[in-house]
Amino acid sequence: MAKISILGFGTIGQGLAEVIAQNAEVVRRQCGEPIEIAHVLDLREFPDHPLGGLVTHDFNDVLNDPEVSVVVEMMGGSHPAYDFSLAALKAGKNVVTSNKEVVANFGPELLAEAKKKGLRYLFEASVGGGIPIIRAMTSSLAGNEIVEVNGILNGTTNYILTEMKEKGRTMQEALATAQELGYAERDPSADIDGLDAARKICILNALAFGVMIPVDRVDVTGIRDMSLDEILDAEKSGQTVKLIAHAGKKADGSPDLWVRPTRLDKSSPLASVSGVFNAILVRGRSLGDVMFYGAGAGSLPTASAVLADVIDIVRCGDKQPAQQQWRRADA
Amino acid sequence: MAKISILGFGTIGQGLAEVIAQNAEVVRRQCGEPIEIAHVLDLREFPDHPLGGLVTHDFNDVLNDPEVSVVVEMMGGSHPAYDFSLAALKAGKNVVTSNKEVVANFGPELLAEAKKKGLRYLFEASVGGGIPIIRAMTSSLAGNEIVEVNGILNGTTNYILTEMKEKGRTMQEALATAQELGYAERDPSADIDGLDAARKICILNALAFGVMIPVDRVDVTGIRDMSLDEILDAEKSGQTVKLIAHAGKKADGSPDLWVRPTRLDKSSPLASVSGVFNAILVRGRSLGDVMFYGAGAGSLPTASAVLADVIDIVRCGDKQPAQQQWRRADA
Repeated sequence: MAKISILGFGTIGQGLAEVIAQNAEVVRRQCGEPIEIAHVLDLREFPDHPLGGLVTHDFNDVLNDPEVSVVVEMMGGSHPAYDFSLAALKAGKNVVTSNKEVVANFGPELLAEAKKKGLRYLFEASVGGGIPIIRAMTSSLAGNEIVEVNGILNGTTNYILTEMKEKGRTMQEALATAQELGYAERDPSADIDGLDAARKICILNALAFGVMIPVDRVDVTGIRDMSLDEILDAEKSGQTVKLIAHAGKKADGSPDLWVRPTRLDKSSPLASVSGVFNAILVRGRSLGDVMFYGAGAGSLPTASAVLADVIDIVRCGDKQPAQQQWRRADA
Repeated sequence: MAKISILGFGTIGQGLAEVIAQNAEVVRRQCGEPIEIAHVLDLREFPDHPLGGLVTHDFNDVLNDPEVSVVVEMMGGSHPAYDFSLAALKAGKNVVTSNKEVVANFGPELLAEAKKKGLRYLFEASVGGGIPIIRAMTSSLAGNEIVEVNGILNGTTNYILTEMKEKGRTMQEALATAQELGYAERDPSADIDGLDAARKICILNALAFGVMIPVDRVDVTGIRDMSLDEILDAEKSGQTVKLIAHAGKKADGSPDLWVRPTRLDKSSPLASVSGVFNAILVRGRSLGDVMFYGAGAGSLPTASAVLADVIDIVRCGDKQPAQQQWRRADA
């Protein structure tokens, strides 16, 4: 029996509980033992949820339970998510997260602490929801020098651009529909101004090149001012406009990170990625182009990615392999 | 210094030597040590190749070298590739292969022997060339019950179907072009009659469901008799014909494996996969659809996948994690 604790019982946290229950037999087979949720840390109570009895408001209950080997942080925001993650590692517990903000802001420190302790800090769910892009880049593409990464990393904006193109809607109209359908927040600025994609491309850049660039150094243009005319004009030229996040190198070897609406030829595999889907195109020196495609959000796909990390840790037992180490970009 | 031996020095074997040289710095960083090729087993001599001096014709040179920890089998065919792989495992050496025929025919035995010895038998390059589909299914999607897998697993036939559609060529004309360009063998039957795709879907089926079904039980229709009229008729209906390989379950729970030309709606992510590219769409119970896309063949992409397996083994050192075990289908 492997015991895990959940920090943050929002949609993804509850999704994780559901995915573990849905796939219990597969999980047991993959891990060699069942996974049991020992604590659910949240400020709220969940009296009607089957796991309501596991709720605690005190993080020390997690820290001081010697049987908990994995802490899953799905709180969102930098604090106290970072502080709790660091404390968990210091207390000898592996940490899994879906929190791209913490990975982008504090990944180097958390990976270094994990290394010091011989533990894992895993974050498959931080980019691309259920798409297994993180493990692909750390493991499957390990032998390749990565040349560049281009991705559609934000499903909300891809949905909006698809609606504009296919239904002739304006950005505002398509955004309103996205909000009605729950694809966009009431305050949609992190999506439509490109910050969400910028955080994710910083993580992919660190995976590709070993350096974490601060998000504020990414050159970001969102889709807030995208006009329907631009979309339709691109279509007339046989192209499609996508909000592309890019990580590569400039000619002088310095980092080249940007997020901006980009015209793609229809022959690009990214051009046919529609609606709320995400896709990441990785170019390796020997490998050429490989693309990963799937639901970039949604509680169950994202929780599936979290669960894959948990299983990886449980399955490896005391054989945890070495992992990424990132340096910070020079100031 | 991690020492490996190469069995079979054809295009992929030579590609592996090239990829290791091209990415030496990345490999050293990923492994914590450089990788050195200790032997090249082949019936031929390669006097003009930089590694020509490593050529041996005697497999015992590999078996009896205690410093060789990984044997990379890229010989093709079932024998002696299977026999050498089994002997290497029995001698305490990890085995990596690109040989789909051996994995499809003898995967259960080789995985069992590897388990017995605490070694790894890895085969990322056996399906989809450089696309990291095997590791995705064994690791990233580990927590999900797989519902079905649909793939474009043969680049030659996808190239032919793309040529027919885009240039109005007949199957025979497009095949001739594929042969001129080196995309198809002089004897193209394994490709156009679907055997190559059938072997690969057997491997993906084993990964998804844990059972290796014999290739001759796959219901296979190739594209040998595909008429241009059928292709154009599908286009008129807004559809595209692709040679799809499918692994799933019938309503009674029995295996459902087939390879056949299939009409796809243009909205399917598989519909826009053109030319020699491959793609695999995996449907997970909680995850939904994820798709993996890339060059399905080519010596450098395929060698990149082989190298990722080698790095995985070297990096884990004495911490090799547990791996797949497959049973054979009941007779």
